Amino acid sequence: MVPVIISGGVGSRLWPISRASHPKPFIPLPGGGTLIRRTYARAAGLASVDQIVTVTNRDLLFLTADEYAEVAAPGVKNTFLLEPFGRDTAAAVALAALQVAGDNPDAVLVVLPADHLILDKAGFGAAVAKAAAIAATGRIVTFGMKAESPETGFGYIEAEGDTVLRFVEKPNAERAAQFIASGRFFWNSGMFCFTARSMIAAMQELCPDVLSNASTALEKARTSNAPDRIIVEIDRDGFAAVPAVSIDYAVMEKARNVGFVPCSFDWSDIGSWTVLSTLVPADDNGNRTTGETMLHGVTNCYVHSEDRLVGLVGVSDLLIVDTPDALLIAHKDKAQEVKDLYNRLKLEGHEAATLHRTVHRPWGTYTVLEEGPRFKIKRIEVKPNARLSLQAHHHRSEHWVVVSGTAKVVNGQSEILLATNQSTYIPCGHKHRLENPGILPLVMIEVQSGEYLGEDDIVRFDDVYGRT
Amino acid sequence: MVPVIISGGVGSRLWPISRASHPKPFIPLPGGGTLIRRTYARAAGLASVDQIVTVTNRDLLFLTADEYAEVAAPGVKNTFLLEPFGRDTAAAVALAALQVAGDNPDAVLVVLPADHLILDKAGFGAAVAKAAAIAATGRIVTFGMKAESPETGFGYIEAEGDTVLRFVEKPNAERAAQFIASGRFFWNSGMFCFTARSMIAAMQELCPDVLSNASTALEKARTSNAPDRIIVEIDRDGFAAVPAVSIDYAVMEKARNVGFVPCSFDWSDIGSWTVLSTLVPADDNGNRTTGETMLHGVTNCYVHSEDRLVGLVGVSDLLIVDTPDALLIAHKDKAQEVKDLYNRLKLEGHEAATLHRTVHRPWGTYTVLEEGPRFKIKRIEVKPNARLSLQAHHHRSEHWVVVSGTAKVVNGQSEILLATNQSTYIPCGHKHRLENPGILPLVMIEVQSGEYLGEDDIVRFDDVYGRT
Repeated sequence: MVPVIISGGVGSRLWPISRASHPKPFIPLPGGGTLIRRTYARAAGLASVDQIVTVTNRDLLFLTADEYAEVAAPGVKNTFLLEPFGRDTAAAVALAALQVAGDNPDAVLVVLPADHLILDKAGFGAAVAKAAAIAATGRIVTFGMKAESPETGFGYIEAEGDTVLRFVEKPNAERAAQFIASGRFFWNSGMFCFTARSMIAAMQELCPDVLSNASTALEKARTSNAPDRIIVEIDRDGFAAVPAVSIDYAVMEKARNVGFVPCSFDWSDIGSWTVLSTLVPADDNGNRTTGETMLHGVTNCYVHSEDRLVGLVGVSDLLIVDTPDALLIAHKDKAQEVKDLYNRLKLEGHEAATLHRTVHRPWGTYTVLEEGPRFKIKRIEVKPNARLSLQAHHHRSEHWVVVSGTAKVVNGQSEILLATNQSTYIPCGHKHRLENPGILPLVMIEVQSGEYLGEDDIVRFDDVYGRT
Repeated sequence: MVPVIISGGVGSRLWPISRASHPKPFIPLPGGGTLIRRTYARAAGLASVDQIVTVTNRDLLFLTADEYAEVAAPGVKNTFLLEPFGRDTAAAVALAALQVAGDNPDAVLVVLPADHLILDKAGFGAAVAKAAAIAATGRIVTFGMKAESPETGFGYIEAEGDTVLRFVEKPNAERAAQFIASGRFFWNSGMFCFTARSMIAAMQELCPDVLSNASTALEKARTSNAPDRIIVEIDRDGFAAVPAVSIDYAVMEKARNVGFVPCSFDWSDIGSWTVLSTLVPADDNGNRTTGETMLHGVTNCYVHSEDRLVGLVGVSDLLIVDTPDALLIAHKDKAQEVKDLYNRLKLEGHEAATLHRTVHRPWGTYTVLEEGPRFKIKRIEVKPNARLSLQAHHHRSEHWVVVSGTAKVVNGQSEILLATNQSTYIPCGHKHRLENPGILPLVMIEVQSGEYLGEDDIVRFDDVYGRT
């Protein structure tokens, strides 16, 4: 059994927490953890799993690996298939099937979108076991979620017993209501189960363009092996030739050998703030809040606050999401339209569509605390044993003050250790490097001074993360 | 003519911009400036003014003086009567009348609340001139604002010609509507005009307790004279004995010699966010915004944003006020109830009722950028020629990095000059002092480290602002 976690898409309805560089699978959940971490734990908890394949954007590798590291999964090897850009789900499934087939064409793959929330692990495990047994017979199995309400945000599957009658794209409200009334429809979850061999055969027949171009992109990929993980960087040019099409459209809707497993466990794809808000318990007035709030005459509101006091007076039915650099206030009935706001930000090239104030790097994070003319203040957190690149800047000098942990600093020709409450100065042009030699996180305040303070004023001489 | 600016009260309906240490007269107006600065300019622009008396809380002296310094008022001497705490308007008027009577009992005083917005300076000047002429005959003159709408937040004056028939406290909506219909009612603006002699005589008759105790508190006051200003610190114990009562109740409603000047110029006391919002022009959908916003399907909303992006989706009739540490979202129809929210914060002793993240000091400001275990980062801005106290801390050391301007630093036994992009380190226990010797503002980043980082870990040895 090889779980394949497919992690793509921003989840723009969950802006401003979800952003291009920090998409939906990575948003912190009210109950703790993230969607991708829980998905990984769920995958690792399945029977006979010793490899998990993850298909994701190359920019998300380090973030993903950090999330996985939070889950104890002894004996599980991670294979990362890193896409240079998204080409929809058929391409991702093709890559995974081809990669796994290289070792064992009869391995059973179970495709799990990274942004599903499933709390009933036993129910999930039973459904996967059932699907795996069907998949072993050469069929491609889809999972149908018991449709409880006439959602218009999902595709539907009409089924009878374990036979799929047809796949239906996202319906309008009227059709969705008819589906629910009929009792024969299930939500199309986007989870699938098949052997590598049968998926490759189906693609060869139904979408040979996807398969052959994905195969070329995988052959040309740059692979690095470590004992506990394989990183496969898919070739950019080869991947660009893969048609962007969904696995539903390319394979599932046309395949003749589709199997079906109806599921009744709770399941959500956390499609909007309205859905996410339900993870927070409501008070007597229907208000759900995280962070510091004060409510006066308020009903049915959701408040997510990270570090500020939110005071509400006389309002109802609002979704309020507060982050350090952007605030969203939406009416509950318009939660779907947050996507439109996000799209406008993206069109304008607004930074708040892409980056959070805290930016994740392979070695840790940095947060811009303040910017002004000729200066910028950053909080830098370096993970234990991590090191930044050996670098220099043309236009700025930097003061570093260690506020927590220990720093090993290369500054020009010298190398020094800085303990908490010590500082150093990196003049403009000096080669320098920051490292955390310790076992606790290193927290440092950096005060930059100079005529130009953009992130692109950096010359990298050496980098353990391959960014030179 | 001696204008008397009375500055008291938080303006809690304008939270979170208005706070106890930064009350309504000091909030930045959409059109520029502040209410108190505009009030001062209006007062200084009146005919024959060479002294302006300000009655305010002692904690607001430096903030007030800074605001006044923004207005060119050549030849005007400022007298500050500093109350240790508020005792309502009768006490404030008594202090002003007694103070001015010491120089000239026949001087004409015009009382101006610090939080009024009047754009028509000519109309205002004409009304004051008219009132002054009546006041010179020994009458106490009140100004009535033409009541245009049935406001329930003001007291009313019923008048016929220049004769006041009666004062009426804040009415309910029904009575207010009757007042407007009758055409004989004016809003009681809280502006008055009288000679020092006649107000003292009226108080001697109508509220002798207020007068005698105010007189004692003034006699025991600590006065410091400078060529351009007099600072009178009213005695705490003496002032505590003054009954807290409004000038309307104590004098105006009972006096027999009240004069009346009806006014038709635009006037507002900026009583709520709904009123303040009207100072910002509306777009075609009735939205009024300052700062960076993105609106999607939004009507009749007001947004005040200082440094963050505010995205709104599908909402209407909201007041949204965003500050670095607190956010308010109120329905327009409930703008008055912001006061209730403020009162709850105050009751809880919440810092957001009192302080902004940027705290004003006599020498400039500081802003806490970030706090964590054992460290705190501040941005410190020192005004030209200003100096902090000579001080020491028991529990923290400090790193200082100059990002703009020049700093003169006493650090233990040494005194150094730091230019932009230079830094120094103040060990725990060292006596130190920071000064801006230049003519441009000094901006500095301070990184504090230590086991305790409260503002009260400070020993002051010497201070130009008398805080030792």
